[in-house]
Amino acid sequence: MSETDSVNSPQGPFTGIRVLDLTRVLAGPYCTMLLADLGADVIKVEVPERGDDARHIGPFIDGKSAYFMSINRGKRSIALNLKNAQDRQDFETLLATADVLVENYRGGTLDKLGYDWETLHKNFPNLILASASGFGQTGPYRNKPAYDMVVQAMGGIMSLTGHPDSPPTRVGTSVGDIGAGLFTALGVASALFHRAQTGEALRIDVSMLDCQVAMLENGIARYTATGEIPGPLGSRHPSITPFQAFSTADGHIVIATGNDILFARMAKTIGLPDLIDDNRFMSNELRCQHVEALEQQMEAALTRHTTAHWLPVLESAGVPCGPINNVEQVLNDPQIVARNMVVSAIDPDVGEVRMAGNPIKMSGFADPGNRRPAPELDADRAEILKR
Amino acid sequence: MSETDSVNSPQGPFTGIRVLDLTRVLAGPYCTMLLADLGADVIKVEVPERGDDARHIGPFIDGKSAYFMSINRGKRSIALNLKNAQDRQDFETLLATADVLVENYRGGTLDKLGYDWETLHKNFPNLILASASGFGQTGPYRNKPAYDMVVQAMGGIMSLTGHPDSPPTRVGTSVGDIGAGLFTALGVASALFHRAQTGEALRIDVSMLDCQVAMLENGIARYTATGEIPGPLGSRHPSITPFQAFSTADGHIVIATGNDILFARMAKTIGLPDLIDDNRFMSNELRCQHVEALEQQMEAALTRHTTAHWLPVLESAGVPCGPINNVEQVLNDPQIVARNMVVSAIDPDVGEVRMAGNPIKMSGFADPGNRRPAPELDADRAEILKR
Repeated sequence: MSETDSVNSPQGPFTGIRVLDLTRVLAGPYCTMLLADLGADVIKVEVPERGDDARHIGPFIDGKSAYFMSINRGKRSIALNLKNAQDRQDFETLLATADVLVENYRGGTLDKLGYDWETLHKNFPNLILASASGFGQTGPYRNKPAYDMVVQAMGGIMSLTGHPDSPPTRVGTSVGDIGAGLFTALGVASALFHRAQTGEALRIDVSMLDCQVAMLENGIARYTATGEIPGPLGSRHPSITPFQAFSTADGHIVIATGNDILFARMAKTIGLPDLIDDNRFMSNELRCQHVEALEQQMEAALTRHTTAHWLPVLESAGVPCGPINNVEQVLNDPQIVARNMVVSAIDPDVGEVRMAGNPIKMSGFADPGNRRPAPELDADRAEILKR
Repeated sequence: MSETDSVNSPQGPFTGIRVLDLTRVLAGPYCTMLLADLGADVIKVEVPERGDDARHIGPFIDGKSAYFMSINRGKRSIALNLKNAQDRQDFETLLATADVLVENYRGGTLDKLGYDWETLHKNFPNLILASASGFGQTGPYRNKPAYDMVVQAMGGIMSLTGHPDSPPTRVGTSVGDIGAGLFTALGVASALFHRAQTGEALRIDVSMLDCQVAMLENGIARYTATGEIPGPLGSRHPSITPFQAFSTADGHIVIATGNDILFARMAKTIGLPDLIDDNRFMSNELRCQHVEALEQQMEAALTRHTTAHWLPVLESAGVPCGPINNVEQVLNDPQIVARNMVVSAIDPDVGEVRMAGNPIKMSGFADPGNRRPAPELDADRAEILKR
């Protein structure tokens, strides 16, 4: 990497690793953003003229997608048409210099372009190939298209989210994409370790739908243990009580008391010490059975004061609790600020753009508050091909 | 590892890596489960008598926690009291053989036990230390306790989840814990790579709250671009339309058409070709502005037939769509089955327990459908200390 490239590029464990990035929209770009945050040199290979679909998804600032900018910071861009002979030659020149190829086409698309794993592995034996597709490279749905919404619905998380009588509820962020991005990045990181140990390059196949299943948590255990199909529970946890949002005089508060000691502390603090010796609430299991009665008593007490009253009182008693913050409050939270979890990039056209930072804090590497902006389409062609 | 240990233990990139695991409940144990699924030898160090809190959280099968069993498969267990001198000595003997120490105490607790990073790094220079705490090891909240519920509330995801007028809505799975588990595992994997390259061991500090911010996706971009605080949108995506659930004659279907070509295909397929030339729906941005009018027209068409009618019709037109599956349907979905995403462990007491598989499919390693069960508390003491 030249010196100008490295301005505001985080150094990290993957410094010196080159990732060739064929991904679009969110799952794949989120994965390669994580790798870039850990130091990798990510080269975004985009279709000529239109580029990544996310360039055309709002919100826009002065006509540029803030969505695209926030997920592609610190990457470089080259436009290549993988159906054009000269562009394929350039692409293969880059493949020879790359450690990892990441793609999130629908299953089978890379094969049709002539870059199936067998061919790639034969020609570029050190190259790791990571695919994040809707349904994976195997199985009956392998060639079907998917988006976040589809795998949130098919993977079960929507059946557990919302209130019992509400219409279907999507998780408010794209956990279908983000989950797949995280698992793919973990697969790539483990494959880089494996290659460092053995010299062998692996092929990683991640399916967005599979990742939803891997994130279902206790839904499968509950169904297996009881035979009952779990449904949505509003703000409650299915098997820990109390562990939910409660009304206060002016809004809401969440309280999470995961064991009997914390429960007793909470009961005393909100002025209901009798809860502790109530037969219905003597254990977490009993509290789960009598959650409605407990909720009623707790809300009667909690609605006497405001959220701002209760938070410090409960906190000083050591009871896990918190406010329900909106995005503005999150961005201004002193802990979020202290942890450098909102970083900026200076875009040459629109100026400062704020975005989430890297939550993996590590000794030995800086965690810069300013990042290199997302690239213009094809902006780094000369520099990338020169190398 | 002895031969008996390796029965049903997945081989993977981290085979030969030993993880000493002080974690409890979910975020940490989820991280070490991911590492075990990638081949690591994970030794769970639990408090004597009570063990991991998750052993006491339901659902239970014959008195054993299915929740605990599903997150701790393939690990081994030793009970040690880190305030007892002999146990500390045993712990330090194990530290000398370990590659990674993972813990999810609240910030500062490990330091109080005398195992702060400086001391550990001096005595065990090859040891990577990974902490997943509620708020991280720095900042004003560093010593506060947190649970999933607290960081879901404080981190903003609850402000984006639910319907506009519904009470607060928790994401139906513990994304606060699972997100932190994933980021911590990625940190560990990248640190193992770094150590393989340079010999240097890193200290990883992950905060559950930070991870929620990193997963907020476009919430920050939307607020930054518009100055408006984003709220919950039911099943809709904030900046892609149509990308949501719709009513059918007998239930719901999700349809996700991320660009104009898919939108046109969808419109023709549901018998509304006029949508294509409607000025209100000519681009994604316009469709977002007129989402209610569009929803009304689409539902009028979609409610004429059942979900089972529409799915194959839309699929054969190449429109991304899907049913909203419950957990039972997920477990029986042919793609989930074909991808080995539901695996089993035979528990000596309760028999077969089903749980989510590993979504990182890799060349070169088997993906066994049967896994080693979760350990009894202290079950592997002799074997672990012998080594």
